[in-house]
Amino acid sequence: MSLANIKDSEVDIVIGALHSDLTSFMNEWRPIFSRFHLIIVKDPDLKEELRIPEGFNFDVYSKSHIDRVVGSSSSIVFSGYSCRYFGFLVSRKKYIVSIDDDCIPAKDSKGFIIDAVAQHLANLTTPATPFYFNTLYDPYREGADFVRGYPFSLRSGVTCALSCGLWLNLADLDAPTQALKPGQRNSRYVDAVMTIPSRAMMPISGINIAFDREAVGPALLPALKLAGEGNLRWETMEDIWSGMCVKVVCDHLGLGVKSGLPYVWRKDRGSPIESLKKEWEGVKLTEEIVPFFQLVRLPQTAATTEDCILEMATTVKQQLGPSNPVFTRAAEAMVEWVKLWKAVGSGSSPL
Amino acid sequence: MSLANIKDSEVDIVIGALHSDLTSFMNEWRPIFSRFHLIIVKDPDLKEELRIPEGFNFDVYSKSHIDRVVGSSSSIVFSGYSCRYFGFLVSRKKYIVSIDDDCIPAKDSKGFIIDAVAQHLANLTTPATPFYFNTLYDPYREGADFVRGYPFSLRSGVTCALSCGLWLNLADLDAPTQALKPGQRNSRYVDAVMTIPSRAMMPISGINIAFDREAVGPALLPALKLAGEGNLRWETMEDIWSGMCVKVVCDHLGLGVKSGLPYVWRKDRGSPIESLKKEWEGVKLTEEIVPFFQLVRLPQTAATTEDCILEMATTVKQQLGPSNPVFTRAAEAMVEWVKLWKAVGSGSSPL
Repeated sequence: MSLANIKDSEVDIVIGALHSDLTSFMNEWRPIFSRFHLIIVKDPDLKEELRIPEGFNFDVYSKSHIDRVVGSSSSIVFSGYSCRYFGFLVSRKKYIVSIDDDCIPAKDSKGFIIDAVAQHLANLTTPATPFYFNTLYDPYREGADFVRGYPFSLRSGVTCALSCGLWLNLADLDAPTQALKPGQRNSRYVDAVMTIPSRAMMPISGINIAFDREAVGPALLPALKLAGEGNLRWETMEDIWSGMCVKVVCDHLGLGVKSGLPYVWRKDRGSPIESLKKEWEGVKLTEEIVPFFQLVRLPQTAATTEDCILEMATTVKQQLGPSNPVFTRAAEAMVEWVKLWKAVGSGSSPL
Repeated sequence: MSLANIKDSEVDIVIGALHSDLTSFMNEWRPIFSRFHLIIVKDPDLKEELRIPEGFNFDVYSKSHIDRVVGSSSSIVFSGYSCRYFGFLVSRKKYIVSIDDDCIPAKDSKGFIIDAVAQHLANLTTPATPFYFNTLYDPYREGADFVRGYPFSLRSGVTCALSCGLWLNLADLDAPTQALKPGQRNSRYVDAVMTIPSRAMMPISGINIAFDREAVGPALLPALKLAGEGNLRWETMEDIWSGMCVKVVCDHLGLGVKSGLPYVWRKDRGSPIESLKKEWEGVKLTEEIVPFFQLVRLPQTAATTEDCILEMATTVKQQLGPSNPVFTRAAEAMVEWVKLWKAVGSGSSPL
């Protein structure tokens, strides 16, 4: 992987701390993370002091910082997994890598530690090919190319704005599936990166992602909060909603989204059976969300990610709002998020 | 892989014989092919007698059979790689597996011989999921499932009509790419099968495929013949055109197309440099073909694959015909093919 064109100083690694003791997590990632600046955002619901080992270059943000920036706004809730979005907001870097704190580096099929950051940056700095599917997977990878029948005019590709990595051991299942298959673990290492075709929608998981903050940062937002959301991934939907937003934005602006490598190793956490006892609102909402985002189209006048999010917020409010107040709140959070993004980004932030 | 629901007698393996001596090819495939009925179609341009080892259940079709069925039609040319389409036409089975005669069984990452037929049949008999992308790849595979955020209403999927396998050693590149990278070989075994999303187009290669003949057979047709086409894969486009047709049909009829496993091992054959000396018309045609098929939409009245092909033929003639007579000939071949398919399929064939 040639990353000659990215400086370490162009990257922020954002960690949402849902657990107070980050010692083991950060020590596992030390060989990979120690070159970069880290933004650690403490879940505002977490009472204990954070424990962070020495030897990293980092800033910590906690409830007081969040309150100062967000002020009296009540639309955006940064608790639980949503805390890391605060890190996306206050970063000043071109690229963000964000990995959940229950993940450690995975090993490839030969037993070597996978440098997830390097792979994400390689995904982001080589073109994506959303307008035609290459059956040989990522054509820019060493030893790969475009397959016969691929138009030469499309071979230069487009900018990749989002890189979605995968998970070994505990896959990213929803609450009912995890509860029905409590023993299921993912052991298959699929050695591929691919561009998700334009207009094809997918559930983007926030567990292990990286993105071009300058291009699509405002689309990674905490908007959909389930009523019974806990701090276990299978109980959340915030990243699925945000992922739909960012995919629609990428399709509209002619940017690419990749999925596949890098893998991270997800450790077991929590009881899926306990989660099943709660009624998981996500099942029902997904049925409404997916067709909505599949059909939504943005006007040509929407030329930036901020424009796109504001347009989508209006449509969400009109079309989904009447069926469930959770969607109206999501639409309000989207509008509020763009305001915040502009305020913080323009340097008028009180940070 | 559970294939309890497919009988061996429901499958034809179709081999287009571009080489007279099939001994080594068939001996390599013996452990896999010997259970099935084979249809061997001899390239009508091939003069020598075929050499086929003993121990297989097969029928051979040659120029005299083709002439008897096709009669005075001049629209369809069955020479070179196109000969195998004659096998698709005369088969009476539900499933066809077709593998080029320069391929032998590949080995997986653990060194085991891959049963390409079993994998193709597994792909065809488990559902496809074209309406939403599953980042965990084939959700029906053992140990896999749908990722969080995948609507439950879409989890039953749709019938898979086409399975496209891949290639180790010599990948399926076009003439210029193969000539520019004569030493490039594909050694990466990507252990995944995925559904190509609805409305996403891809270059489907005919080297290693299987399909549900009852569902989409009439869409696998020899229509586009390049002027300077030779009998090396990188000089051909007939399968790319046919692949576009079948993908459009599948999207229209709500059927699925999968890509990925199984791999076959492609042996080196021919000189890419020699191919480069010919002007490869494929480069220019691809630029016109891809946007055409991306935009073509079929009327709701087109309810069968035959209807769809006839509709497409009309549009090809109108929209592409004026730019190049090769497209007009392709449109005529499509109409002729549907006629032939109906005649042969209805039992009125003179075979």
